[in-house]
Amino acid sequence: MEKLSLLRETMKSNGLDVYLIPMTDPHMGEYVPDYWKIIQWLCSFSGSAATVVVTQKFAGLWTDSRYFIQAERELNGSGIELIKLNVPHTPEYIDWIRENLESGSMMGFNSEVVSIGLFRQLKEKLESSGIKLKETNDLTKDLWTNRMELPGSRIYDHDVSFAGLDRVEKIVKIRDSMRKKGVNYHLLSALDDIAWTFNIRASDVQYSPLAISFALISETNSLLFIDKDKIPLELKGDLIKAGVEILPYRQIYSTLAKLSPKSRVYLSIASVNTQLYNSIPEECTIVEGISIPTMLKSIKSGKEIAHIKNAMIKDGVALTKFYYWLENNLTSGEHTEMSISEKLEEFRSEQDYFMGPSFATIAGYREHGAIVHYEATAETNIPLATEGIFLMDSGGQYLDGTTDITRTISLGNPTDEQKRDFTLVLKGTIQLALCIFPEGTRGYQIEVLARKALWEHGFNYGHGTGHGVGYFLNVHEGPQNIGSSASGSNDISLQPGMLISDEPGLYKEGEYGIRTENLVLVKEVQETEFGKFMGFETVSLCYIDQNLIEPGLLEKTEIDWINFYHKKVFDALSPYLDEDIKGWLREKTKEMIIE
Amino acid sequence: MEKLSLLRETMKSNGLDVYLIPMTDPHMGEYVPDYWKIIQWLCSFSGSAATVVVTQKFAGLWTDSRYFIQAERELNGSGIELIKLNVPHTPEYIDWIRENLESGSMMGFNSEVVSIGLFRQLKEKLESSGIKLKETNDLTKDLWTNRMELPGSRIYDHDVSFAGLDRVEKIVKIRDSMRKKGVNYHLLSALDDIAWTFNIRASDVQYSPLAISFALISETNSLLFIDKDKIPLELKGDLIKAGVEILPYRQIYSTLAKLSPKSRVYLSIASVNTQLYNSIPEECTIVEGISIPTMLKSIKSGKEIAHIKNAMIKDGVALTKFYYWLENNLTSGEHTEMSISEKLEEFRSEQDYFMGPSFATIAGYREHGAIVHYEATAETNIPLATEGIFLMDSGGQYLDGTTDITRTISLGNPTDEQKRDFTLVLKGTIQLALCIFPEGTRGYQIEVLARKALWEHGFNYGHGTGHGVGYFLNVHEGPQNIGSSASGSNDISLQPGMLISDEPGLYKEGEYGIRTENLVLVKEVQETEFGKFMGFETVSLCYIDQNLIEPGLLEKTEIDWINFYHKKVFDALSPYLDEDIKGWLREKTKEMIIE
Repeated sequence: MEKLSLLRETMKSNGLDVYLIPMTDPHMGEYVPDYWKIIQWLCSFSGSAATVVVTQKFAGLWTDSRYFIQAERELNGSGIELIKLNVPHTPEYIDWIRENLESGSMMGFNSEVVSIGLFRQLKEKLESSGIKLKETNDLTKDLWTNRMELPGSRIYDHDVSFAGLDRVEKIVKIRDSMRKKGVNYHLLSALDDIAWTFNIRASDVQYSPLAISFALISETNSLLFIDKDKIPLELKGDLIKAGVEILPYRQIYSTLAKLSPKSRVYLSIASVNTQLYNSIPEECTIVEGISIPTMLKSIKSGKEIAHIKNAMIKDGVALTKFYYWLENNLTSGEHTEMSISEKLEEFRSEQDYFMGPSFATIAGYREHGAIVHYEATAETNIPLATEGIFLMDSGGQYLDGTTDITRTISLGNPTDEQKRDFTLVLKGTIQLALCIFPEGTRGYQIEVLARKALWEHGFNYGHGTGHGVGYFLNVHEGPQNIGSSASGSNDISLQPGMLISDEPGLYKEGEYGIRTENLVLVKEVQETEFGKFMGFETVSLCYIDQNLIEPGLLEKTEIDWINFYHKKVFDALSPYLDEDIKGWLREKTKEMIIE
Repeated sequence: MEKLSLLRETMKSNGLDVYLIPMTDPHMGEYVPDYWKIIQWLCSFSGSAATVVVTQKFAGLWTDSRYFIQAERELNGSGIELIKLNVPHTPEYIDWIRENLESGSMMGFNSEVVSIGLFRQLKEKLESSGIKLKETNDLTKDLWTNRMELPGSRIYDHDVSFAGLDRVEKIVKIRDSMRKKGVNYHLLSALDDIAWTFNIRASDVQYSPLAISFALISETNSLLFIDKDKIPLELKGDLIKAGVEILPYRQIYSTLAKLSPKSRVYLSIASVNTQLYNSIPEECTIVEGISIPTMLKSIKSGKEIAHIKNAMIKDGVALTKFYYWLENNLTSGEHTEMSISEKLEEFRSEQDYFMGPSFATIAGYREHGAIVHYEATAETNIPLATEGIFLMDSGGQYLDGTTDITRTISLGNPTDEQKRDFTLVLKGTIQLALCIFPEGTRGYQIEVLARKALWEHGFNYGHGTGHGVGYFLNVHEGPQNIGSSASGSNDISLQPGMLISDEPGLYKEGEYGIRTENLVLVKEVQETEFGKFMGFETVSLCYIDQNLIEPGLLEKTEIDWINFYHKKVFDALSPYLDEDIKGWLREKTKEMIIE
């Protein structure tokens, strides 16, 4: 309550009637470093998505159903009310502000952590109700006494043997694309764009190997705005040799302000914050679009694909060892959702070039599997036993690739209903993997193939079917995706070299959750008089639990796919396994024979 | 050439450097009445889609590949150059104007035949290049000496026994919807919207039973702008009794100009022309959206559905008689694409309430079947023989429904390739018909089901898979559709009661074309904990040629569908057929048995 009172005083002295606190950083990334976790400071809420709105009389936190129970608990005594979002990730608080503030009210927000996309929504919806917008700095700056420092992890070179192209080659490609777009500058704010461009990695952000930075590429200069103390001398030398000029992190704002009036600046409104955008002189022309590194890195090169396939073998070996261990240690009753997540990381860390998990492992036993973004905590953690359904979604960051895989297994005595449900989901995974589609096809055009069998039984799932995946970068990395909606940025065709997940699911509240997820690569399969046709190559390698398959629900092509896939899994992984595990995997991947 | 010279002089005296002539009327309908066929007057081009751009030194006609050969011939000697569109139905001429006219040039256009949607594109793209837009009247007005009159067909009542709701009930529904949208006026410009609202029909437009008119619905008034001499006395009395005020057709413009300043006017930018739009005082608020009658009539009522099913029986009886006649009269060699189209119309006209064809019959024998919008002419017409593939796409307007159906049959000795191709297309028709999908699903999400089997063989087709169909109105009538693209107006969910076509195809240039098209009705199939689920009911009734089916390519569910469908066709049609035809249809619809 004290923090809230302090904030309200600061609001008063700044002439603000309402203050908006989004849970974002200046780079609009998925995982926000602690330095920018203002909501957590203010009210202890530790979820990953929320927005806080504060007035003199009211303070509310908007979050989605994942966090309802947790928020009730964490907000207790904070003076901040929980407001439940009807639709996750939508700015429903804007309507609250419209309805509850009088015309003439002044709303403040830290323009460094509001994307220009959100700013436009605020402006459009609030100004028509007479509510004025005022860009402020971070009002908590002087209130937050024990605030942590900006992330300061050491930057390292992503060796060209992994990266495929060196940083000079990448900058040349970016400039080629800038020339075609007729722009002089490309402002980069998304950390994965910058890491890819300069072949640098760090640990400033959880799960993604990123460094807090900005960049500005022009026809002649490559400016990297970053705390130079974080860069080892040798790498600094390499960067300078590549023509990269290293400038202080916050200098981006003044550099933008000094751009010459005729400049044409290219940027993505999804990742550029309002302060950056407004720093660009009005006389400049801003050209908006998907950032060039985002497009370039979404299409993996032949070298990257070879590395990714190797990373998949390593990840598959770790998973196989883990599931073998689990099956042999279940009876003890001492292993919990949390402890086995650590065990899995242990197996992954035995593999070459492993750098850490690519996201928080979802280990959902029984009814926990039905909670789509479940992350076991001390309070929810339960031990595994020799029955029920267990869903595990996990991934690794390796220098040679990022992985993301979900398997659902039976720990014993699967019911007919469980087998039917598992098989319907698996049909979706397979039908999408088998899809052949013409050049230019968008993800939303083929997504139904993953849902069709479920729909026929009156089932469905509430998440998308496929997200793009980075290369030793973000595990969720577009622009490609396979979703139901065709809105805005989803209108990207699936192109050879794109890596994407294939992950239908089915969640029965209070009972169990099922998901079978593989990563697939888009590849060209043939060219006919009707044009080029693409297909998917499944690159994740881990057996699928045949105890949960109801063969009577499968078509022959689906059984063929399972047998082909299991042979591929065994052939790829067995050379790295001891005899006992190899024998076990042979059994797990044995051919399904249908009479 | 003389007409072009006259036009250029008129342009000069109006201070225009360039004049734009689209092939549209003030209502933006699919079939343009002769009165507005300015392009045909200017240069004899008789195709259905084109745009002409005229400057002092240049005149060009942009059209799509359907009309390349015809345009070459028809434009010969007109002084107008053919410009081939890369993408059909796109305003590629705008780029030509940008690139070829100097900044400061003045472009004129008749704002009555340019939709507000197109006007905005012109404005956005041309004004940034310094080209000014000038709304003019129709410059050909005084040049076109023997111009025909405005269409003057007699209006008739669409009896409430067919229409289901009377005009008062429909206007009440429109006003309900207006209230929810918070608008005072609804401007109607699309002729099908007006015909539906007032339960009137006429023959002002080819193939669609429409009357040239405008309408303006307010909270208290219903104004119908139409030539009152076209309305029989009794109908006029009925309209007036229903509270409809009848005003002269062109008075809409001055009525709009007199709207009170605080009015909120609802309209669709797809059908409203620029002159209408600009007639509305600037002080009014214009609210844009899909017009209310368009949404209301897209969902067929229970009564309409019962009528439609009856119309389908009649249409199926006519088709069955036709195909029986064709099979028994082929050997003569005297029947051509054109003559059998007339024969089919003869059979349709024997049916109750038949009012005419719903579009120009496509009767494509052999390689003509591969021309998607083929319409046989005296020059192209060929006789049918006892071999080869014959595609026929046709439809009827009945007082109790509009039909549209395509069948492809073998006239003898089908090859294995033809059978494979036919079966792949048929799989698409069936898979889409079998689809179950949750409430809220858009057409683009399920379209792949119609294409999947073709894509797997490296085949594809260049048109959409499904268009909405009106009820004794337009054969192409949205907003619903099943297409590849999710852009703009296609973002409409498929709702129970919507009537839509299911028509995948395959076109092998120079060889043959295949399409199997049925109309399907969206209906709710079940509700589960995951929500409501919809499916399709196939309502078109005509046998599918089993001589072209390769059973080895079909799944069991597909064979079941064919057998179920054929039983339904026989049961529905046989009561209306003579014994000999009945026996023939029994054979055509015999059960496929797969060992």
